Amino acid sequence: MEIINYVLGYENLKIIQDSDSFRFSIDSILLPNFVTINKNVKKILDIGTGNAPIPLILSTKTEAQIIGIEIQKKSAELARKSVVLNNLENQVQIIEDDIRSYSFETDQYDVITCNPPFFKVCENSHFNEKDEKTIARHEVTLTLEDVLRVARKLLKNGGVIALVHRPERLVDILVEMRKNNIEPKKIQYVYPNAKENSHILLIEGKKNGNSGLKILPPLYVHHKDGSYTEEVMKYFS
Amino acid sequence: MEIINYVLGYENLKIIQDSDSFRFSIDSILLPNFVTINKNVKKILDIGTGNAPIPLILSTKTEAQIIGIEIQKKSAELARKSVVLNNLENQVQIIEDDIRSYSFETDQYDVITCNPPFFKVCENSHFNEKDEKTIARHEVTLTLEDVLRVARKLLKNGGVIALVHRPERLVDILVEMRKNNIEPKKIQYVYPNAKENSHILLIEGKKNGNSGLKILPPLYVHHKDGSYTEEVMKYFS
Repeated sequence: MEIINYVLGYENLKIIQDSDSFRFSIDSILLPNFVTINKNVKKILDIGTGNAPIPLILSTKTEAQIIGIEIQKKSAELARKSVVLNNLENQVQIIEDDIRSYSFETDQYDVITCNPPFFKVCENSHFNEKDEKTIARHEVTLTLEDVLRVARKLLKNGGVIALVHRPERLVDILVEMRKNNIEPKKIQYVYPNAKENSHILLIEGKKNGNSGLKILPPLYVHHKDGSYTEEVMKYFS
Repeated sequence: MEIINYVLGYENLKIIQDSDSFRFSIDSILLPNFVTINKNVKKILDIGTGNAPIPLILSTKTEAQIIGIEIQKKSAELARKSVVLNNLENQVQIIEDDIRSYSFETDQYDVITCNPPFFKVCENSHFNEKDEKTIARHEVTLTLEDVLRVARKLLKNGGVIALVHRPERLVDILVEMRKNNIEPKKIQYVYPNAKENSHILLIEGKKNGNSGLKILPPLYVHHKDGSYTEEVMKYFS
């Protein structure tokens, strides 16, 4: 069933979701608030855009052209409907294709965002590889290596890629970034609360950037009573 | 001038420092409180031990044999004096030598700790390479690569190395660890306060360990008024 949600904190933004499919989570709200967007940014690419929460939120922050690419037909269709519903046809374009084979022009993008599948596929992983939720969560059609290899090709010199991922994958991410001449520049760890380990990693790297990594102040999602913290609520407005 | 300090929070521990030389800082208190010490730990090595704050604090937590190695004669002498002053001759041994050439038995240590020089030496770095503070702070006689190469050799299989370092060097540390089959297992970022970027990185890796990194809850050093936080004070007791 298709349902129209409002994006928390963005009163004028509506997003169409399928109640049976993978739906966007706090990850997709954190990332567009973390990535460095300034007025020089003209072209943005969101890889694995799903039903386009990241392009929709980014549209409230920049005049840049935003392209979202999504391999899953159903998600891409929902994304297109949301773009129309929000009258963003002139700013946001949705491509239904596989980023690994789609031929974008190289060295064109100022910013790439990606909320990729988090989980490595192991020999003993067993799931339906065509399942929509599986594709969104597991590295079946898109691996971390793919994302960073593509980013290296498509980013302008000095352009940035921002990822939201799981802290467990930090070493893999940093090693792959370095391998692709993308220098990690800022990291923010997100914690469920002040007493637990980090559960979300936000990281931005710059193509051919100089070294100089900053670890931003931590971000807590919830108060003890489970309500959102002021810090996170601020991101929602 | 030699002065006897008490180590904050360790009432019975005295440490002899030279008022003209590099003195131990909060880094040396954080590290022995971060590293994983359990009752199976029998041999510990502290690389670049200075006047031995880390071995002295560790001695309050474990019965293990602790060796500190220090290249600078003056610091090593002060370290030995402190060992005697605290009646720890049976537990703590200080070696005055260069870890890069000293021939330790390999695959012997359960735990290695190191508060290494933080700063890379660049072509345009200009300082007196024999200056004591320079040696303690800059990678003149000991680089990150040296520390991890030595750790790989001296650690038992499954043994851990814990470092205190600067967050700016995170990528270098993780890349070097992986290169030496030391798998990063836990990281804790220390922040001056809740609004500033992290200024201290604590990291532990395991020789031939499985992947599975945890980012521990953040640690703040100071309250707004500059006083130590309860979290840090707890470490001092």
